[in-house]
Amino acid sequence: MRLSGKLNGNIIIIEKHGIEELYNTSFYGRPRDGTLELSLAEGAYLLYLEKITVWFEGEELDFKLFFTKASSLVKNFELLYIVYKDLRERGYYVQPSVTGFRVYPRGGHPGKTPAEFFVLITSERIPLLLPDLKMHIETVDNLKKRLVLAIVDEESDITFYEVKKTVLSGTCELKLDCSISRASLLEDRVIVWDSQVSNLLHNHGFFGKPMDEGHLQLSLVESCYLLDTGVLEIVKRDNKRLDFESFSGAASRIESDFMIKYRAYEKLRNSGLVPKTGFKFGTHFRVYRKFEGISGISHSDYLVHAVQHDHIFSLQQLSRAVRLANSVRKEMIYAAVDQQVDFLFIGRMRL
Amino acid sequence: MRLSGKLNGNIIIIEKHGIEELYNTSFYGRPRDGTLELSLAEGAYLLYLEKITVWFEGEELDFKLFFTKASSLVKNFELLYIVYKDLRERGYYVQPSVTGFRVYPRGGHPGKTPAEFFVLITSERIPLLLPDLKMHIETVDNLKKRLVLAIVDEESDITFYEVKKTVLSGTCELKLDCSISRASLLEDRVIVWDSQVSNLLHNHGFFGKPMDEGHLQLSLVESCYLLDTGVLEIVKRDNKRLDFESFSGAASRIESDFMIKYRAYEKLRNSGLVPKTGFKFGTHFRVYRKFEGISGISHSDYLVHAVQHDHIFSLQQLSRAVRLANSVRKEMIYAAVDQQVDFLFIGRMRL
Repeated sequence: MRLSGKLNGNIIIIEKHGIEELYNTSFYGRPRDGTLELSLAEGAYLLYLEKITVWFEGEELDFKLFFTKASSLVKNFELLYIVYKDLRERGYYVQPSVTGFRVYPRGGHPGKTPAEFFVLITSERIPLLLPDLKMHIETVDNLKKRLVLAIVDEESDITFYEVKKTVLSGTCELKLDCSISRASLLEDRVIVWDSQVSNLLHNHGFFGKPMDEGHLQLSLVESCYLLDTGVLEIVKRDNKRLDFESFSGAASRIESDFMIKYRAYEKLRNSGLVPKTGFKFGTHFRVYRKFEGISGISHSDYLVHAVQHDHIFSLQQLSRAVRLANSVRKEMIYAAVDQQVDFLFIGRMRL
Repeated sequence: MRLSGKLNGNIIIIEKHGIEELYNTSFYGRPRDGTLELSLAEGAYLLYLEKITVWFEGEELDFKLFFTKASSLVKNFELLYIVYKDLRERGYYVQPSVTGFRVYPRGGHPGKTPAEFFVLITSERIPLLLPDLKMHIETVDNLKKRLVLAIVDEESDITFYEVKKTVLSGTCELKLDCSISRASLLEDRVIVWDSQVSNLLHNHGFFGKPMDEGHLQLSLVESCYLLDTGVLEIVKRDNKRLDFESFSGAASRIESDFMIKYRAYEKLRNSGLVPKTGFKFGTHFRVYRKFEGISGISHSDYLVHAVQHDHIFSLQQLSRAVRLANSVRKEMIYAAVDQQVDFLFIGRMRL
């Protein structure tokens, strides 16, 4: 015998039996005033399972009619349904939340255990705003839960990502004991001409790339860091000296996102990490956690991409970045640059 | 004894001995009127090897002075030098060309064999215009050579990519013998309600994803293709029918690049290939070459991204796309959509 429910605004109200048969046994819906209230996603799923019937203005709605109606009532209803069904079918108990769903840990359920995950549901087509994401992370952090991003692609496949703030630190202590050396900015890179300084910078700090024996090429962020820390002075082709302001100004004309890249670079270096270009991976940096000299260098640990505080993620690009990081056994980190630099870990998750 | 050369504009003129010592033995430069002419990259390399001296207005230039001067004379001189040095040191004979360098096959040299590769040199920072790339491909194709893109990153590492036009074809012959069926466009996806048609489309054409038993969700490009081929009719929530123009108009309002995606999809399908969403890989499509039914489906062969005829590649994104494709053993293909759809293969290359 199916239970009978009435569609009322955005909820379905199920007769009294529902509490016993749907909530107490399987944690569907929320008991209220002697009835059971279901969300539209719960309703569609129970309709598909043939556990309920749904009535609206005296007429019974079949699955097609109900689904079409629900889709006009709730924004992104199809996404909610797809994710809800997926989670339930994999044995999770799910309740609505501010982000989309609260999900209970395996073996847990409402009334017994607290929820473990807050799931934020979105489509690959919807751009994700960094300020929104940070707000969700904060909310979920305060509740001591984990934030999961469920992205539904155009063919309705779901990919789950865990998102959290993280602290990065490494073992590299920079001791560059050398007198200040002069390097030249040529077009878009800097060349250190002194062979002793070139070797010291490369071997003890993994700065730059030897162009040949004795000459070192530095990237713009590396040069700027060494200028700021007083290791180098940098001149133009005409031998005019560049201070921090004029160098970073010139660098920003070469790369428009130079300053956010530099802020992330500086924070990484100051945390004992060694950032090198991540160009081959399509990110700003690949980052080494352990560094005790150029000879013992092994694989890098993180791919770090610096973004402005109001960045808008294309989920297609985010997906590609995380996928690539995983395929080379690294962690994908976004460095959100504002007054301070925050690191956000985004990783694929198998719920 | 070093040979003596004079800097004259953008070339270095080496005394007569040079022909014997530099050209006849190692194919540096080009003999002309009893002297040998060197490009600035060749000159810098031979100066570094201490095989020549370079004089300018009666003054001898050391490596630093010459390099700084060359960098002010020739745009992207550092890039040219880095790539030239790399190729020579790996045993290739190299001559200048319209794209940058002509490179001779291993064992070959000027006068004995034709050049094999035309190398186009660029920096990760310089956006690459698709019309320029297509022009280079055509030029190099006409000369029956192979086009190589040498991209120098900010730390002067070089990545080589081979770029060529390619033809794609597959084994899927679509035979969808069913009467026309009605499907609904809800928000940003289409649902087929008839269970027989749902199964036929999914099992024999790998269209859509089953939402549950009997209901199939189709992506916008899939729906548009099935609408255009007369398999489906598509209605809105209010049961109003959408024809090809109104459906593709609605789809373009959901995804701004819908039409170029659709043109690529159509060409792939009509070539016997099966395109499915490539969202997890950050591209428009993953594409199956062999398809004889849903049960025998294995891994996809290509990642295809559709781009407008005047697309501007960010080399960072191109690098990430190719790297990701390789890491999952697929080929990265760009579909350049204009009057016709051309497929461009871009793959990492170990020269």
